[in-house]
Parts: sequence; C-alpha cells; structure tokens
Amino acid sequence: MVSSTEAEIRLIGLQGIPEVKPGDHLAPLIAAAAEHCGLAWADGDILVVTQKIVSKSEGRLVCLRDVEPSGFARRLAAQRRADARFIEVVLRESHRIVRMDERVIITETPHGLICANAGVDRSNIADDDCVSLLPENPDASARRLRDDLRQHSGVEVGLIIADTFGRPWREGLTNVAIGLAGLAPLTDFRHRRDDHDRPLMTTVLATADELAGAAGLIMRKTMRIPAVIVRGFPFDAGECGMRELLRARERDLFHY
Amino acid sequence: MVSSTEAEIRLIGLQGIPEVKPGDHLAPLIAAAAEHCGLAWADGDILVVTQKIVSKSEGRLVCLRDVEPSGFARRLAAQRRADARFIEVVLRESHRIVRMDERVIITETPHGLICANAGVDRSNIADDDCVSLLPENPDASARRLRDDLRQHSGVEVGLIIADTFGRPWREGLTNVAIGLAGLAPLTDFRHRRDDHDRPLMTTVLATADELAGAAGLIMRKTMRIPAVIVRGFPFDAGECGMRELLRARERDLFHY
Repeated sequence: MVSSTEAEIRLIGLQGIPEVKPGDHLAPLIAAAAEHCGLAWADGDILVVTQKIVSKSEGRLVCLRDVEPSGFARRLAAQRRADARFIEVVLRESHRIVRMDERVIITETPHGLICANAGVDRSNIADDDCVSLLPENPDASARRLRDDLRQHSGVEVGLIIADTFGRPWREGLTNVAIGLAGLAPLTDFRHRRDDHDRPLMTTVLATADELAGAAGLIMRKTMRIPAVIVRGFPFDAGECGMRELLRARERDLFHY
Repeated sequence: MVSSTEAEIRLIGLQGIPEVKPGDHLAPLIAAAAEHCGLAWADGDILVVTQKIVSKSEGRLVCLRDVEPSGFARRLAAQRRADARFIEVVLRESHRIVRMDERVIITETPHGLICANAGVDRSNIADDDCVSLLPENPDASARRLRDDLRQHSGVEVGLIIADTFGRPWREGLTNVAIGLAGLAPLTDFRHRRDDHDRPLMTTVLATADELAGAAGLIMRKTMRIPAVIVRGFPFDAGECGMRELLRARERDLFHY
C-alpha cells in the first residue's frame, strides 16, 4: 500500500501581498506573505506568480493619457467602439496581427506568444487610466525572482510567471506559463514505457502549463492572490525557459 | 489575517485502482481506492478520472485484428508507415479531418472535440492489439459515474472525465475536460469587479480545463493513477456538460 501523501499535491495561495508598485521587489513581499500564512518554504516548491505583479514591479505600465494613437489605431478603435489609445498600445506590443474581428484582436507578441490584445490588460491596475504590458523578457524576470528568493529565503524553487490566455476551439481562458526558471516546461515520456511495458509513442506533456492552470484555480481574478505555491510535485530541473513551449512554425499545423 | 487553508486546494491521486475491464463498475473501484488511501469523501470534492478507465469500463475498445481497413485508410497508413487498421479506426471515429501531415491526423469527433487521432489511443491497454475509443457520450458517462458514487458512497461530487489533447501554437499535451457532471465548466467573471472595483470585461475562465490540467499533474501516464480528487475548490454547480467548453463556429476565429 502506498500512502496518499506520495500522490498528493498542495496548491497554496499566498494572501496578503500588498498592491505592487513599480520598483517594488517581489521576493520580500512574497516571502512575507508566505510567513504570514505560516508557510515554511522548502526546496522543490514551485512558485507561480501572475504576470500582473511582475509587470507592475517592473514598471511595465502605460498611462493612456500619454498615448497618441496612430491613424490605424483610430480606425480599428472606431470599428470596435474601443479606446484608440488602448488599441495603439496593443499595436505597439505586437509583432503581427494573427486574427481580428469586431470583438477581439489576436496578435503575436515579440516573445512569440499568441494571445488577445498582445497581453495588454486594464484589469487590476490601481490607476484607472493605465494598462499593463507583459514583461519584456518573462524568462529573465522569472530567473531574477528565483535568484532573489534564493538570496532572500535560501530556497531553490521552480518559478513560473503565468497569464490567462484564450485558445482556439475551446471556450474560456486558462492560465498558462509565459516565463519560467529552474524547471523544465515539458515532460517527455517518449522514452518511458506505459503500464503494459509498451513505449509511450508520442506523449510530451506541457507540465508548466498544467502547473500554471492549477495555480489559476486559486488565482481567481477578484481574490487578491497573485502567488501560489505548488508543493509535492517532483519537477524536472531545466533552464530552457518558455521558448520550449512555443511550437515552431514548421511543426505547427495551425500556423497563421 | 486569513489562514492558509482558505486558499488551499489539495490534489489527491487515488492509487490501487486495478486494471479496468469492460463491464466493470467504476464507482466501487474508486471508492475502494479512496478508502485504501484513508480518504473520506466529502460533498464538494471533485473527482477527475481519465478517459481511459471510462472507455475500458464501457467496453470502448477495438481489437485491430478485427478491423478491415478501407482503401483510403491503407493509403494514409502507407504515407505514414502506420498501421492501416489503426487509421481505419481513427477514420471511423471522426466526423471530419481538420488537418493532417505525415506525423499526425487532427480530426473533429462526433462530440465536437478536435484532437489527434479522434482520441483513439494505443497506450495503457492490456491487450497489445487493441485500442481505446473515447466514450460515446462523455457527459452521460460522467453523470452515470456521479450518480453511482452518490448511491455507493452517499456523496455529491463534481465529476470530470479528462483526456490529454494537444493545442495549436504551444508544445506539449495538457489534460482537458471531455465530459462532466455536477459542475459548471466555465466561470464567468464578466459581472464581477476587479480589485479596484472596475468590471472585469472579458474574463470567462475554463475552470473544468484547469481542474483537469491540475489532476493531470498527478495522472502521469506511467504511474497508474487514473483518478484524482480535488479538494477545497468551491465550484459552481451546473449540468450543461462539456458542450459549453466547445467554441461555437461563429465565435471561433480559428475555425477550420
């Protein structure tokens, strides 16, 4: 008999993290919240944080009052009854437009992420007139926060920066990994064998996205929980970052 | 101060479920495994089970030795150095082919699911020559298992049947909900307000897929854990089933 704890994962939301401002260091805020919740960090914990607090701490905010929309942004905004300054910021953050209709603009960001509005977002920003951008280099942000936590708390965590993205064919957003440090984003079962000792032919699991999605269950948007500890999941170490999660164009049957 | 338990979710893998055979009733097998792990069920638990054990219990298996491939299946198989009988089963389970190349055939199933090989799968089947099909009506399977568990153990759980699917643009498979009972697949935040009291304009979260993905972290393919209890997640009741997770063609910018 195997005890249940060997097959148990805990998702623990860190409450009490204050509103993050540009220049704030996240590691001490997160460590204080963990302590406040009575949690002792452990090596092997995974920390999942929202893109939003990372972007805020890095000052990746744009105030719309400072934005002069281009003619194209004005035209797109008029078609959508949207704020032309918001559309302008979306265009500035976009590498290309993948699809658009009257409801949504799906773009590819310079990072290679495909998502609505290039990840530009109005929700959960203290200043009504400001929007947040994705971190400039989410893997670098993840590495920095992981290093800071090691320095601050002496622990080696796996670190994921997550955001909620839509996807083709299925309704609803799910939380996915947009930056990571210290853990491998994919788990390759192709050389392992199934329960009947046959090779598992094609199975590569997007572990980092499942971890982000699990944390998303706790990070509900209105609950002020921007950081979640995943405890009890034996992850593979790795430094390849989120690029490994992006399907190469030549391997993508759904490239646009 | 809020205690950590208010923001904690536990994912508990049920070990010790034996190889499931056609005609087996899952509820007593799952209840026995839970008892074996020392787990008392509670109302409000969510049970996530793999498609594989549901399909096996329903006899949704096809032995390739009994399959006579069509000419088209033979041609596709020859292009791929694949087993023509396997391709034949995939075609029989497909409503249409969405995309294909020399590596993979993406089809839409009669349920409206879009996935590789119509969900036909060779892994984790005791008989080397057999493959499993998706349940004929995964929502009905989920309702049946939920009813059986209520009868058997006296608990009201939310129930999800999950399978690992690929997705466009991103590498790796993630576990998603293909059938459900007793819980709402989507959580609509559009009438709620963010932390700064502004409306959350467009946020509908695919809760059932995040729950399936979280369970997927425990259901790693070679670990014989086909059932996971999610405890501590306050879900919305609902009976709409998985169809709500399928994006309607007219709302899908990426319809094929």
